[in-house]
Amino acid sequence: MDSVKERGLFYPPDPSSRGSCFIGGNIAENSGGPKAVKYGVVKDYVLNLEVVLPNGEVIWTGANVLKNSTGYNLTQLMVGSEGTLGIVTKIVLKLLPLPKYDLLMLVPFKSLEKASEAVSAIFRAGFTPSGLELVEIDALKIVSAMVDSHAVPVTDDIEAHLIIEVDGNNMDVLMQDMEQIAELTAQFEGGEVFFADDAQQKAELWKLRRRVAEAVKTSGYTIEEDTVVPRAELPKLIRGVKELGKQYGFHAVCYGHAGDGNLHIRINHPTIKNSHGSPEMTAALRALFQLVKSLGGTVSGEHGVGLIQKPYMDIVFRNANLELMRSIKRAFDPNNILNAGKIFDLA
Amino acid sequence: MDSVKERGLFYPPDPSSRGSCFIGGNIAENSGGPKAVKYGVVKDYVLNLEVVLPNGEVIWTGANVLKNSTGYNLTQLMVGSEGTLGIVTKIVLKLLPLPKYDLLMLVPFKSLEKASEAVSAIFRAGFTPSGLELVEIDALKIVSAMVDSHAVPVTDDIEAHLIIEVDGNNMDVLMQDMEQIAELTAQFEGGEVFFADDAQQKAELWKLRRRVAEAVKTSGYTIEEDTVVPRAELPKLIRGVKELGKQYGFHAVCYGHAGDGNLHIRINHPTIKNSHGSPEMTAALRALFQLVKSLGGTVSGEHGVGLIQKPYMDIVFRNANLELMRSIKRAFDPNNILNAGKIFDLA
Repeated sequence: MDSVKERGLFYPPDPSSRGSCFIGGNIAENSGGPKAVKYGVVKDYVLNLEVVLPNGEVIWTGANVLKNSTGYNLTQLMVGSEGTLGIVTKIVLKLLPLPKYDLLMLVPFKSLEKASEAVSAIFRAGFTPSGLELVEIDALKIVSAMVDSHAVPVTDDIEAHLIIEVDGNNMDVLMQDMEQIAELTAQFEGGEVFFADDAQQKAELWKLRRRVAEAVKTSGYTIEEDTVVPRAELPKLIRGVKELGKQYGFHAVCYGHAGDGNLHIRINHPTIKNSHGSPEMTAALRALFQLVKSLGGTVSGEHGVGLIQKPYMDIVFRNANLELMRSIKRAFDPNNILNAGKIFDLA
Repeated sequence: MDSVKERGLFYPPDPSSRGSCFIGGNIAENSGGPKAVKYGVVKDYVLNLEVVLPNGEVIWTGANVLKNSTGYNLTQLMVGSEGTLGIVTKIVLKLLPLPKYDLLMLVPFKSLEKASEAVSAIFRAGFTPSGLELVEIDALKIVSAMVDSHAVPVTDDIEAHLIIEVDGNNMDVLMQDMEQIAELTAQFEGGEVFFADDAQQKAELWKLRRRVAEAVKTSGYTIEEDTVVPRAELPKLIRGVKELGKQYGFHAVCYGHAGDGNLHIRINHPTIKNSHGSPEMTAALRALFQLVKSLGGTVSGEHGVGLIQKPYMDIVFRNANLELMRSIKRAFDPNNILNAGKIFDLA
């Protein structure tokens, strides 16, 4: 990412784990990150992959081109397949011209639901921010304490913040857009807007956002979900999460890529500390994913399925879907030698 | 497309066949069109598909969301599968906010190769036009005569034109971008720029561009190819096409979505009028696709494979790729009841 930037080019996918993850893993999971709201996710930048198949054959999945209608899209089948179909050994990515400027602001909201309502309104007004993140106040308190930051004043009447970034090549336009977006947030009881004035303030805000996951995990929110719903349904999802918390006796904090409808939900239960092996937590998570499904969403927006989410696949996919996926797995890997047992069971 | 525009929304895919094609066919072929250079192709807008499988099961391939890392990407496997895997019965598309303004200009070039060199330079300078089309003069002469248009002066010292569109929400920025792009084209011996002043002039230019395919076909250019290469390799492809014409005794006109590296090549041979059944034309087209492959490209950018391009799949795909595609086809459609014989043979 940094090395292409030096050449005036831009590779937008920017997962929060960017300090520790590798691009091969990003392809396996179809990773996202804050810029996805304007620029899309990993799958939107992968043009061609060299793959070692389970039978030892080496193929290129496509061609080094921006458009391709030549046979089945094996490239997109590999992206997000979590290492179950083949081993990626070379990657051809699309790069964009690097936008010259970006502006960042933080807007506090008295109500988490109102904050999530403002998200859709920004798009309906014709803006496409390059970042539109939501962080619930509990998460912001925890991360601010962890990194000893006072960048964001944490007051009792605030429930959530939106972090809003715009980017482009014309600073006047960006300033206008930011002002108009700020005005718009006031209609949703948004409070006083904090504009990040310089590179250092921007870096501080992004650092806070990036370290939320780690911070809430270490402070007891050990169960991690990666729900995604249509953007306009975010308020219903958030309301539902809070109700489920009351019903099942857990506390949840919500944060994530609100502009994509991709909400990370971290759960703190007084006694149950992981999502599997407990009938009570399984029931709670099934209820959560049934809600997500009823809103048109699904189990994972950018984290993948692996082992942890596997028990919930039946909620969002009919058996006919899972059978198709199994048959694709068998076609690629008849002896089940690659990452067996991930995403679904074969039997 | 028009019905979402009325609501201030934007569905960018805009194939030249838009008067006669259907959206189901667009999904089957992963269609493109002039706006793909900025906005991507059909695959970039399809979020979820209801599909009737060959076994009679009805599935939804994904979810109605902007990000999805939940199992294999069956949605993208269906897009571009040319009706061989299932029958699409419902479609969920992503829409964008409609850009408020667009500007259009036409730039003549003394050399086809120089015109194609200018294409890459525009992106390297940081611009992302919403349309960047190349039309060789022979094609423009034919279509101008067919529709009886004098919109574009056709002079003997011009070999090709670029049609360049920019869009966005700020007219001042668009004017600046257009001026800078126009200046840049002069470095590639671009001639006097023609700015389309009003909606009527824009419509006239786009009409000329859209009707090129039909015009050249009826005037003898009956063999149609849909090559795609990395954008920077366009000059080499164009030079190669002309050399192959001399070698195999045909005349070719080039036009298409130069900004994507997607070049339509129409071939006029004095005696051979279609691409199959003639060993001589088969040899010529194999040589063309070998060139395309050597440049990192492939057989079809947006038209698909069907029956006509099937004999050339071995040039761009190893047998291991084709075997994988066949195994996917068998997994979906073991009795080969859907569009049998398209893309590849099963046996």
